[in-house]
Amino acid sequence: MQLLYKGKAKSIFADQNPENVIIHYNDDATAGNGAKHAEIDQKGVLNNQITGIIFDYLQKHDIKTHYQKTINEREQLCQKVQIIPLEVIVRNKAAGSISKRLGLTEGLAFDKPIYELCYKNDSLGDPLINEDHAIALKIANAEDLALIKNQTLKINQLLVKLFAQIDIELVDFKIEFGKNSAGQIILADEISPDTCRLWDKNNQQKLDKDRFRQDLGGLIDAYQIVANRLAGRSEN
Amino acid sequence: MQLLYKGKAKSIFADQNPENVIIHYNDDATAGNGAKHAEIDQKGVLNNQITGIIFDYLQKHDIKTHYQKTINEREQLCQKVQIIPLEVIVRNKAAGSISKRLGLTEGLAFDKPIYELCYKNDSLGDPLINEDHAIALKIANAEDLALIKNQTLKINQLLVKLFAQIDIELVDFKIEFGKNSAGQIILADEISPDTCRLWDKNNQQKLDKDRFRQDLGGLIDAYQIVANRLAGRSEN
Repeated sequence: MQLLYKGKAKSIFADQNPENVIIHYNDDATAGNGAKHAEIDQKGVLNNQITGIIFDYLQKHDIKTHYQKTINEREQLCQKVQIIPLEVIVRNKAAGSISKRLGLTEGLAFDKPIYELCYKNDSLGDPLINEDHAIALKIANAEDLALIKNQTLKINQLLVKLFAQIDIELVDFKIEFGKNSAGQIILADEISPDTCRLWDKNNQQKLDKDRFRQDLGGLIDAYQIVANRLAGRSEN
Repeated sequence: MQLLYKGKAKSIFADQNPENVIIHYNDDATAGNGAKHAEIDQKGVLNNQITGIIFDYLQKHDIKTHYQKTINEREQLCQKVQIIPLEVIVRNKAAGSISKRLGLTEGLAFDKPIYELCYKNDSLGDPLINEDHAIALKIANAEDLALIKNQTLKINQLLVKLFAQIDIELVDFKIEFGKNSAGQIILADEISPDTCRLWDKNNQQKLDKDRFRQDLGGLIDAYQIVANRLAGRSEN
C-alpha cells in the first residue's frame, strides 16, 4: 500500500478508489507535542475499534464523517479529505491545558461547554487561536468556521449522551475536520481515549491518555473498559 | 491624596467626589510582564497628554469613556470604575506576540482587524482567551462581551482615522473597560504609545513602546512626535 501520510499514532494509505484512504492505527503514544513517546501494545487496535463505534453512532445521528467501514483490527476505510489545520476542542469540565492556562481546578464544571480552536502546527506548539486568527491565517472562512462550530457542539451533545449511557463522563475532546473532494466539510481523524478525557462515573478513574501523560499506568486496561462498554451498550 | 491602586505606569488616587478618581501618570516603563523595567523621564507627562487628547476625541465621536478632564501635566480626573480584567486588543497588522505565536511576519496587513481578548492576570501571564473562557471565568457575560467588542471595533475605526490624519499607522492597540457606579461599561485606562503600536507613515519608524521593548532608544523623542502631531492637528 502507498503511504500518503504518517501521523503520530496513525498512518494513512492510498486505496484503490482515489476518493478513499485506509487509516492504520499504530501503537505509538505521544504527549507534550511529541516530547514524550512510547509504544503501547494493542493501543491502536482499541482506538480503531472505539473510533469505529463512535463514528458509526455519530453518522446514525446525522453527523457527516469520513468513516466508511472498519476493515480489520487496525484499519478503517475512510473518505479522503484535506485536513483543516485546526484542533477543535470542547470542554465540559476543566482539565489539562485550560487548568494550567487559566488557573482552574481540575474537574470544575462549566455552565456551558467551552469551545476552543487551536492552530494545528507542531512547530508553533498548536497555539490557541480565535476565529479571527483562523480567518487571517486562511485556515477557513467565516462560513466554514460557523459550520465547524455548529457541528462540534452537536457532536458534544451526542457524545455526552453516548458516554453517559456507559457511566463515563466526557470531560473534553479534540476533533478535526476535513474537506472531501466535493468540498464538503466533514468530521475526520479519530475520536478515542487518545483524543478525549473520559472519567469513570463510578470512581472518577481516568480512562484516557492522561494515564500516559501523567504516568498513571494501566492505559490498556482503561481503553479496554471504554471499548467493552461501548461495544456492550444497547444500541441507541 | 489617598492611593487606591498602584499599577505599573499609573497610580490611582481618591477624589473628593466618590464617583471620581485622579489618575497619575508616572515615568515607569515595563515590558515582558514586568521582567524589564526602567524610569524614563517625561514619559508620564507625554502619555497623560496623549491619552487626554485621544479620549477627548473618542468622546466627541460618541464613545463613552471614564475621562473627565486633564488636571495637570501628570494627572487626569476620571470616573471611578471597576476594571473588567480583560486586555482587549485589535490588530490591523501583525507585530509583537501574534507574530511569535502564529509565525506571521511583522507588518503583515490583515484583511479585517483581528479582535483578541486576554485575561488580565499577571500571575498567569495575561493569557489569550476567547469569549467562552471569559464567561466561564465570570469576567463578563455574553451581553457585556458583545458591547465590548462592538465598542472596540468602533474605537479602532476612529483611531485608525485619527492617526492617519497625522501620518501614523495604527498597527495594534490594547484597551481596557470598566463598569461605573451606574453599571455602565465604559472605556477606561489609557490609550498612548505605551498601549498602541504606532508606525510613522513617512519612514516606518516605531513611535511606541517597542522602542523600549527592543532597546531601540529614542523613546521620548518618539512619544513627543506623537504628542506634537496630535496636538497640532486640525480638529476633526
